[in-house]
Amino acid sequence: MTTAVANGGAKTPATTRVMSVYSEVQTSRLNHTLPLPSVLRAPFALADGPPSSAAGNPDEIAKLFPHLFGQPSAKLVPTSDSSAAPSGPLKIGVVLSGGQAPGGHNVISGIFDYLQQKAKGSTVYGFKGGPAGIMKCKYVELTPEFVYPFRNQGGFDMICSGRDKIETPQQFKEAEETVVKLDLDGLVVIGGDDSNTNACLLAEYCRSKNMKTHVIGCPKTIDGDLKCKEVPASFGFDTACKIYSEMIGNVMVDARSTGKYYHFVRLMGRAASHITLECALQTHPNIAIIGEEVATMKQTLKNVTDYITDIICKRAELGYNYGVILIPEGLIDFIPEVQTLIAELNEILAHDVVDEAGVWKQKLQPECQKLFDFLPQAIQEQLLLERDPHGNVQVAKIETEKMLISMVETELEKRKAEGKYAGHFKGQSHFFGYEGRCGMPTNFDASYCYALGYAAGALLHCGKTGLISSVGNLCAPVEEWTVGGTALTSMMDVERRHGKFKPVIKKAMVELDGAPFKKFASMRDEWAIKNRYISPGPIQFTGPGANDVNHTLLLELGAVQA
Amino acid sequence: MTTAVANGGAKTPATTRVMSVYSEVQTSRLNHTLPLPSVLRAPFALADGPPSSAAGNPDEIAKLFPHLFGQPSAKLVPTSDSSAAPSGPLKIGVVLSGGQAPGGHNVISGIFDYLQQKAKGSTVYGFKGGPAGIMKCKYVELTPEFVYPFRNQGGFDMICSGRDKIETPQQFKEAEETVVKLDLDGLVVIGGDDSNTNACLLAEYCRSKNMKTHVIGCPKTIDGDLKCKEVPASFGFDTACKIYSEMIGNVMVDARSTGKYYHFVRLMGRAASHITLECALQTHPNIAIIGEEVATMKQTLKNVTDYITDIICKRAELGYNYGVILIPEGLIDFIPEVQTLIAELNEILAHDVVDEAGVWKQKLQPECQKLFDFLPQAIQEQLLLERDPHGNVQVAKIETEKMLISMVETELEKRKAEGKYAGHFKGQSHFFGYEGRCGMPTNFDASYCYALGYAAGALLHCGKTGLISSVGNLCAPVEEWTVGGTALTSMMDVERRHGKFKPVIKKAMVELDGAPFKKFASMRDEWAIKNRYISPGPIQFTGPGANDVNHTLLLELGAVQA
Repeated sequence: MTTAVANGGAKTPATTRVMSVYSEVQTSRLNHTLPLPSVLRAPFALADGPPSSAAGNPDEIAKLFPHLFGQPSAKLVPTSDSSAAPSGPLKIGVVLSGGQAPGGHNVISGIFDYLQQKAKGSTVYGFKGGPAGIMKCKYVELTPEFVYPFRNQGGFDMICSGRDKIETPQQFKEAEETVVKLDLDGLVVIGGDDSNTNACLLAEYCRSKNMKTHVIGCPKTIDGDLKCKEVPASFGFDTACKIYSEMIGNVMVDARSTGKYYHFVRLMGRAASHITLECALQTHPNIAIIGEEVATMKQTLKNVTDYITDIICKRAELGYNYGVILIPEGLIDFIPEVQTLIAELNEILAHDVVDEAGVWKQKLQPECQKLFDFLPQAIQEQLLLERDPHGNVQVAKIETEKMLISMVETELEKRKAEGKYAGHFKGQSHFFGYEGRCGMPTNFDASYCYALGYAAGALLHCGKTGLISSVGNLCAPVEEWTVGGTALTSMMDVERRHGKFKPVIKKAMVELDGAPFKKFASMRDEWAIKNRYISPGPIQFTGPGANDVNHTLLLELGAVQA
Repeated sequence: MTTAVANGGAKTPATTRVMSVYSEVQTSRLNHTLPLPSVLRAPFALADGPPSSAAGNPDEIAKLFPHLFGQPSAKLVPTSDSSAAPSGPLKIGVVLSGGQAPGGHNVISGIFDYLQQKAKGSTVYGFKGGPAGIMKCKYVELTPEFVYPFRNQGGFDMICSGRDKIETPQQFKEAEETVVKLDLDGLVVIGGDDSNTNACLLAEYCRSKNMKTHVIGCPKTIDGDLKCKEVPASFGFDTACKIYSEMIGNVMVDARSTGKYYHFVRLMGRAASHITLECALQTHPNIAIIGEEVATMKQTLKNVTDYITDIICKRAELGYNYGVILIPEGLIDFIPEVQTLIAELNEILAHDVVDEAGVWKQKLQPECQKLFDFLPQAIQEQLLLERDPHGNVQVAKIETEKMLISMVETELEKRKAEGKYAGHFKGQSHFFGYEGRCGMPTNFDASYCYALGYAAGALLHCGKTGLISSVGNLCAPVEEWTVGGTALTSMMDVERRHGKFKPVIKKAMVELDGAPFKKFASMRDEWAIKNRYISPGPIQFTGPGANDVNHTLLLELGAVQA
């Protein structure tokens, strides 16, 4: 039981982690001691809360999860009754699901350490390559030697991840075969909203079949859109935002030093604009576009262009022909008219010929035609040429930052001709994405993930299922963090798809009446005109700033005045 | 004399640095104590070396610099003879010239502190916006309050920079008027190869006119191509490479975790490939293209594409459909055939009409036409459409990383059709540039720059002119660094331009028989196939790795075995 065993595949991803090629910082992080919330360091008991409901449509959720609906959330509390401690070894599987987020390795380390320390004799299997690893029974048995090189390191390469889902009856059957074969007492699913919905369906399935396997989720996504009152943050958000903010801060200093560039920075995060908002709070850009506001105000692309152009003109009058503008990756998904255009284009591209002369454009509704003509030529071509395997326009491939630069240029030329603008404009485009997903976790994410994993181990040890590991009071020192599990069904609502109700954990969008947005909104006019740039600098692991909590969390938890 | 005075402009750039909006890391860096080489901390004397010559064509250099040619370099040595110490206050001007590089503010701090401590009563003027500030007599008088907020901070925004040159007789006259008006004893020019050539011309001019103003240069450029035996490094290179390497390391972890992307990373640095080489040594990518090798081997774009494609195919056979590839920004400048094509295109675009049907292409030489047809369509369009104000093709705007992705894709499809490749390929493009130019300087750059500035003050105080501040023994602890000044004429050669000899400091290119390239060349085959990725992580200011010297310097100074 001491060596890693890989079933069904010769290449264990982890063999690529060779310790001798670690950098000094990587090595020092290996030996970084992870603090634990005090409730996890002493004997604890589990205190159940009141019966839970759902985030919406509780009747439908109750039908979809007959065995789990209504179960209470649970909280770990200190106890002096040592007989309350769970005992006995467990067999646990763990899986990483979806895109990378800094800290995933520490969740696994937390689970592993809990079981090593509190449930001696336990076995932990890591499913390889995401949920497909469960269905295909591809796994590696975790050992201290195997886990150690990944402590506090970025990436998901210990067992890798995947985007498959366990959806069809056949797939549930395959998953069942694996957990039965491995005799699993529990499974921890580390993932985003979809993956945790999937985890809950699996928990329900196992319960309905009277299987002993329990399922616990963990909140992962750099996008920061999987959260609720009990789960104040998804892991990875803190690190990713700090990496992007380092780069934004550098670009700001560059803008101010050179005095001649407008840097348009697109930031990863498709569905929600949390990353853009957090980076704005960390760095004070001249402009940050928040998708949720654009959608709520039903803004058009022209509105957004005019908003940016107006500020550029005002700044030119003050002698500033430079600036920094943050744009969320998902911006155009938030603009209703763009959605309409894309839907019409998909229809036309599927059935008609796009002629060079542009006769095809007459098939567009007048409003859509106007918008299409408003778009820069390069974007028009991208919309017509780049299609996914289903023939649809690939919205994700549109380089929004370049599109906006081009549209702002056109608008500025117009104003220059009208004598309303006398500055000079040079746009520089940036996309900060992949470099943030796999960075070494900050001290916050390292500790948070370790606690999430440790808590997941404790919840399984106490016989819980259908909960998401929940660590709270995150603005306090780690010792004071609260630990528990939240009923996944309590976070759910339903969506109607293909005539059926589907359970979903709703993405937590930026709330326009939430403290982070309100703080941003109260300061942005000043940032637009005056230069209040902040350069957070590189993430530090020791010394000043090393244990700072991000602004979103501080503001949402009310730890600072909005 | 205690407040900043701006002559000729209401907007002092520095007013935008408001200390209350500094991040914690920025603030902590303000208070970071800068160590000094021990020779600068005790009484010193200046020891002149033997008469110097030139890097090439000494006869021509002697004619161009009749008053300066042959002057010795100088070295600071400890002395117990306190009467040897220079005395009396000085009036000194300082200017930042050319692109940003981390540490510029510390050079100024070093000059300022030297004069405050060793030449009490001195005055330092900062010329605003580069050499134009000298010609237009735009300056700010530096005070402790003014300088303090910029200590150890990135950027050039204390006095900003510019790319103007003092070239024509009229411009020399304007500069003369300024230095006479301000009664300057000395001027420090902080810049790259061109700016230091300019500094030497100015020193010669002042000497020829019997003016009291002395001129000292300081070696600045992130590109790392201003160096020689006495000047082992240009400042900013260390920080920029470490910032890029952090990002490359993250992208490597991402590549390994996802297992499905080839990341093509273009790195700033037009003329030389030092940055790409250093980042390769820090991170161990699967492929790094070194422009100097491509030029020496007279490789074609097809050769480079094939080299990359071959490795991708080999990796696919091993089950790796991912990787990281580094590309120097200036790559296409190194490829002879591309230079020929661009020259022909410039000629054709200037005189002929580019018709849609492509008849114009017949004007290209057959080899050029073949290369043009080999290029991806997007690049063809870029070559034809994007021109600079002189109507020339804008080589700098070509996104080499996207071009290579497209060419590799085409080649892989061909091989797939031939049954020689069965993998899958997805390219992701990155450009790391601006985010590295203005980062907070590493401990190395912070100390190095401070010593360079402090030494420049000492050289001026000792009455020297036409030298470049030189700090050596850089792999040893700061206390043991050597300090002196190198005759700028000794670094010069001539180039024939418009029928005249022009003095130039030759750019130091990557040497194929130098230790850094040899180390890279000895390891790259292993890196290509095995994954030896290293993730340097974010720059640390305290703790492990905080005082590491970069590989190029270590290898060039022979501090490690090649």
